[in-house]
Amino acid sequence: MDTTTTTDATTDPTAARLAQLEARLQLLEDQHEIARLVASYGLLVDAGEAERVAALWTEDGVYDVEEFYMGNRAEIDAMVRSDAHQGLIARGCSHFLGPAHVTVDGDRAVAVCESVLLVHREGRNYPVRIGVNHWELQRTPEGWRATHRTTRGLNGDAEGRALLARTGTV
Amino acid sequence: MDTTTTTDATTDPTAARLAQLEARLQLLEDQHEIARLVASYGLLVDAGEAERVAALWTEDGVYDVEEFYMGNRAEIDAMVRSDAHQGLIARGCSHFLGPAHVTVDGDRAVAVCESVLLVHREGRNYPVRIGVNHWELQRTPEGWRATHRTTRGLNGDAEGRALLARTGTV
Amino acid sequence: MDTTTTTDATTDPTAARLAQLEARLQLLEDQHEIARLVASYGLLVDAGEAERVAALWTEDGVYDVEEFYMGNRAEIDAMVRSDAHQGLIARGCSHFLGPAHVTVDGDRAVAVCESVLLVHREGRNYPVRIGVNHWELQRTPEGWRATHRTTRGLNGDAEGRALLARTGTV
Repeated sequence: MDTTTTTDATTDPTAARLAQLEARLQLLEDQHEIARLVASYGLLVDAGEAERVAALWTEDGVYDVEEFYMGNRAEIDAMVRSDAHQGLIARGCSHFLGPAHVTVDGDRAVAVCESVLLVHREGRNYPVRIGVNHWELQRTPEGWRATHRTTRGLNGDAEGRALLARTGTV
Repeated sequence: MDTTTTTDATTDPTAARLAQLEARLQLLEDQHEIARLVASYGLLVDAGEAERVAALWTEDGVYDVEEFYMGNRAEIDAMVRSDAHQGLIARGCSHFLGPAHVTVDGDRAVAVCESVLLVHREGRNYPVRIGVNHWELQRTPEGWRATHRTTRGLNGDAEGRALLARTGTV
Repeated sequence: MDTTTTTDATTDPTAARLAQLEARLQLLEDQHEIARLVASYGLLVDAGEAERVAALWTEDGVYDVEEFYMGNRAEIDAMVRSDAHQGLIARGCSHFLGPAHVTVDGDRAVAVCESVLLVHREGRNYPVRIGVNHWELQRTPEGWRATHRTTRGLNGDAEGRALLARTGTV
């Protein structure tokens, strides 16, 4: 990650402080970039921006929602363009994601957040789904990208609670 | 922004590293301050803190909600003190904003988030509105302030989706 | 906080810049760690992770919810294991917290956020409670911990609005 650290860091106190600052700053930047990527998902999917949604994943990134498994960018793009999703955004909806809890370990990371899908129908809004989202991410030359996102409903099933319990574990 | 960078940064490697650290840190601080400003809106408006809500904008900052256009701080302050808003908070409500997606470009920035307005009525809570919030902000001597906020419902209208699609564009 | 600042910071411009960078970075790290702690609460409590929920507080940390007062970690742990809470997560629920507004003052901090409790019942989800959460936190040798969290409903009572108005005040 940190390519600017010079070998004199062990003997030169200024170089050591600089190297430590650079490493701490890099970690904060990583955490911020990942939280921003997660926050962008709901905005872009509700806008119907299929390509930009798909580009949050690596080329062969997986998006596994209980009733639906997408195994690469093309399948995620197709989901956004599908009649089912287009029907949702034509009616009015919010894929409302909570703040991401991010854990970085070198070039890999995990982010966990809860979400509520609200759908507009005849002047009213219904929280039709509550769920947990477990994102696995990887540092790539183009920045952080999702490699595997698993989304499960919080409807009493053990699977959703098990995903939540993995918060903080890369 | 960065007033401490000295001209020796091009020849002195320590000065160059310091200048780069200062610039990266400044960007993170900007992003954090803007996200915090956006997060404070819901808290302060639900508290009825009219002056503090208005102070999130520049003196002539605009808050454009579909049914309502406010063209400066005084009009935003008046909205918080209005019977309509006071009625909402007397009954119980939450202007629940999601995490802001922030994009900084020098002294200007854009933040986008979704929101849900929940209203309490006779022991129940109703999500009476789902929407998108597009904030334009400017760096001022007192810190970041909103210059133009546009809020639209996510009720199927094209305008809301167009605002969401502007995520990431300053 | 900053133990690496050397006394030459007043005469040596490099040392002064390093010390300033370290202090600014420390503040951002504190804000990030506190926001992450708050974000983890909903995830861990919905997972039923009693020990990890309790460990967000100091040993004698207080969690004061209107109908319920917990005066230490053991009582918070017992709340998560209680029939009432286990019933909620067995049915399906989301303690959905908004982004935390964090204010740090040395070794103490305050974080404020709104929250919605959504409960799953027979295929539908109900926002049964909207509230405000006022967290007081303290820096400890193990990191930031909550010393006193007060949660009140946003149901029109003055108490909830008064808590919201304390946003930004340590």
